[in-house]
Amino acid sequence: MSKEIGVTVKKEEDYSEWYTQVVLKSELVDYASAKGFMVLRPYGYVIWENIQGILDKAFKRLGHQNAYFPSLIPESLLRKEAKHFSGFIPEVFWVNEAGNNKIGERLAARPTSEAIAYYSYAKWVRSWRDLPLLLNCWNSVLRAEIKSTKPFIRTSEFLWQEGHTVHESKEDAASEVMTILRLYKDFIEETLAIPVVVGSKSDREKFVGALYTMSLESMMPDGKALQMGTSHHLGQNFSKAFGITFLGKDKQNHFAWQTSWGVSWRLIGATIMVHGDSKGLVIPPKIAPIQIVVIPIVFKKESSAQVLERASLFYKTLTDAGFKAVYDDRDGYTPGWKFHEWELKGVPIRLELGPRDISQSQITLVSRDDGEKTVIGEELLVDRVTSMLDEIQSRLKAKAKKMSEAYTSEADSYESLKQIIKTKGGFVKSPWCGDQKCEDKIKDETGADIRVLQVNSEEKSPSCVYCGQPSNQIAYFGKAY
Amino acid sequence: MSKEIGVTVKKEEDYSEWYTQVVLKSELVDYASAKGFMVLRPYGYVIWENIQGILDKAFKRLGHQNAYFPSLIPESLLRKEAKHFSGFIPEVFWVNEAGNNKIGERLAARPTSEAIAYYSYAKWVRSWRDLPLLLNCWNSVLRAEIKSTKPFIRTSEFLWQEGHTVHESKEDAASEVMTILRLYKDFIEETLAIPVVVGSKSDREKFVGALYTMSLESMMPDGKALQMGTSHHLGQNFSKAFGITFLGKDKQNHFAWQTSWGVSWRLIGATIMVHGDSKGLVIPPKIAPIQIVVIPIVFKKESSAQVLERASLFYKTLTDAGFKAVYDDRDGYTPGWKFHEWELKGVPIRLELGPRDISQSQITLVSRDDGEKTVIGEELLVDRVTSMLDEIQSRLKAKAKKMSEAYTSEADSYESLKQIIKTKGGFVKSPWCGDQKCEDKIKDETGADIRVLQVNSEEKSPSCVYCGQPSNQIAYFGKAY
Repeated sequence: MSKEIGVTVKKEEDYSEWYTQVVLKSELVDYASAKGFMVLRPYGYVIWENIQGILDKAFKRLGHQNAYFPSLIPESLLRKEAKHFSGFIPEVFWVNEAGNNKIGERLAARPTSEAIAYYSYAKWVRSWRDLPLLLNCWNSVLRAEIKSTKPFIRTSEFLWQEGHTVHESKEDAASEVMTILRLYKDFIEETLAIPVVVGSKSDREKFVGALYTMSLESMMPDGKALQMGTSHHLGQNFSKAFGITFLGKDKQNHFAWQTSWGVSWRLIGATIMVHGDSKGLVIPPKIAPIQIVVIPIVFKKESSAQVLERASLFYKTLTDAGFKAVYDDRDGYTPGWKFHEWELKGVPIRLELGPRDISQSQITLVSRDDGEKTVIGEELLVDRVTSMLDEIQSRLKAKAKKMSEAYTSEADSYESLKQIIKTKGGFVKSPWCGDQKCEDKIKDETGADIRVLQVNSEEKSPSCVYCGQPSNQIAYFGKAY
Repeated sequence: MSKEIGVTVKKEEDYSEWYTQVVLKSELVDYASAKGFMVLRPYGYVIWENIQGILDKAFKRLGHQNAYFPSLIPESLLRKEAKHFSGFIPEVFWVNEAGNNKIGERLAARPTSEAIAYYSYAKWVRSWRDLPLLLNCWNSVLRAEIKSTKPFIRTSEFLWQEGHTVHESKEDAASEVMTILRLYKDFIEETLAIPVVVGSKSDREKFVGALYTMSLESMMPDGKALQMGTSHHLGQNFSKAFGITFLGKDKQNHFAWQTSWGVSWRLIGATIMVHGDSKGLVIPPKIAPIQIVVIPIVFKKESSAQVLERASLFYKTLTDAGFKAVYDDRDGYTPGWKFHEWELKGVPIRLELGPRDISQSQITLVSRDDGEKTVIGEELLVDRVTSMLDEIQSRLKAKAKKMSEAYTSEADSYESLKQIIKTKGGFVKSPWCGDQKCEDKIKDETGADIRVLQVNSEEKSPSCVYCGQPSNQIAYFGKAY
């Protein structure tokens, strides 16, 4: 494969340029005409469909239903929850005209759907019999990006899902927040093979309008943290602003308790960053659009018919067994060129079949992540591919875990915290007193903010890494995307 | 069920009010805060998911892939195909601000994606090897509605799919147009059980920017036609505007040939209109969110345990057999109330089970469309439900066909055309010379326009119903939504 088609920089040498080349050259995405926007191309879209499929089933199994709310929100509605509005205002795209006419009240292109959904919820929720109301939306949201675009990670529009639930009690809502957090954690760790740290956000970093925010954070190979998803307890902030009340079993009217939560196509970006290598994508088998590519090795005319026949037979065996397979018998490309292309595209397994394999009734399988070749007897094809996919998924998970652990440090002193952030990056676990002043100072002086907070489970009560006051929580400090 | 919950008008007496009540009270949709917009509620969303699932599989079987393009389109891009732009300008929502800043070039909220997609296509298409390019998008589009909103039928935002394909030759594109037209026709007739008339649009009615438009039109019970979907041959209009060229097998550069096509959630509106009755929705089994509801009939305490146990057993039998079933054992509602609620929701089959059924080892099944009761032996449950669903689907189709045929007339003279449109409505088939002047006059004088055109296959060459000039095509005139 020519230089222009393949990735021309090493992941270790120029990580940012590597990422850009990988997502563009593997044809996952392209830049769009409008600044800050991207196009999700078919190969990328299938990964999103695979993520959607798994999450959608998991949500439904827990009783959630899907719905669709409008993409334009009247300004007055967005203003109803004041903090929420002020938090989103810097990034809202505003519609002021329809056709050739100015419109009376400007409309916000949906930055998130709390306001528009809860307008409806106020009409739908009447009694405790209507609760819990468990809805989810698959849509896109718009948030004007002032920083430079990074496909999947930072774009002015992104595909995501947003859950919006209503409950009778604060406890029920808290339980929903944790149920979803666990669901996300399990999905990211088992399906995307990426370890996550979970915990609460500080008040500074929580969702604007929430009582509290639980977050999932993963470590990227450049030592920066990436927020993978969030699950918010909204308390009664929105129910009071929007008038969502219900007649309780006690015959009294109550304001409802709410949650919202979401993950976006950013998960695809994280997967690329964590697992990819200098040859291109390495896609975990569980979300791979193509799990195995069958490549006949044909050099001489005389042997080609038999190779092609056997290769297409194996392709059929694989698809019949339920694998996502591709048969690449394109003319005009050398086997080597094809190897490189499918490596760039991150297909977990390559099946090579040449005249020598046939003469020995064998098949050569190559795993994308470590490049290992395995030669097996033909009759073992389905069994071996099944186990290899499992092994690749496990290896990716283990490797990511190792990377993430290597990037997790502890610091008891501020000097140490500063030093680690400056030299190594990653997560630095330090006690924090809970005072936003310390948090602000640390952010200003090191560039690291609190990614998540966890309750300190150790017996001794440590002192805040910044001010020395007693602390009952451990903060994961880190620089973030 | 109380008057307020059920539909309070008969379909035959106040069709428009009936439709509004049905879609709202069955909880398919709700009005949104912004004028002209609607919310798709969970029960309606499942119908859309069912439609999506079937169509998506059919598209993919033909080699189409999904992608996502941005929802905001720079004005300069939308202007590239001049007719296209002028056609959409009256209904475009414009974004002028991002956060607190005016933006340089205003952005159109996507009214359709030709412009934004073809900007990318110009980059992606290089050689005949890249063709055909067969993409589809599932998204929502925004078109400011000046007329009053009718849920599913006329809203300022709607969910749809839009296919966008690129081909080497005019013939290849023409063949794609027809392939999709047939796919749509089969889906609407077999899955939605609604007959359609297919044909081309006149130049006046075709898609702005297309060479020609093929359309699918169905007759609604009030004698008005509804456009169900369209499939456009775009010729080279857009490829010339956007510079989509490819190196042909002849080593020459050529402008590509393109198609676009789409159907929207309007299909749900048509299904409600055609099949619904004065009790509410009647949903064709093939897209029903719930195919059968199991209702235990419990009056006296002493017999209730046995009834509940058997009913829940039958529910389990049905779900195990793959049916979409619901078990309604809610307390505090009479069986009669439940019957009405599930009738309102259009569930194809109701299973009733009372003490007398149990003592006789029988089950009572009631079909929603005709209200017929069938008493069967318990052991026949799965077999009978399978065949009943098929029978209901067939009956709905036959009934719709009868309605549509009753609304299809022929007129040789303009007097007759006018008379039919005025008194009876429906489709009126008449010869038309092809001159837009006649078309305009007929529209002005009768309110009917040409829904589709078909080639006249009869031997004698008839004369235009308006001007008397020779005609080689038959126009389906009708008033439309």
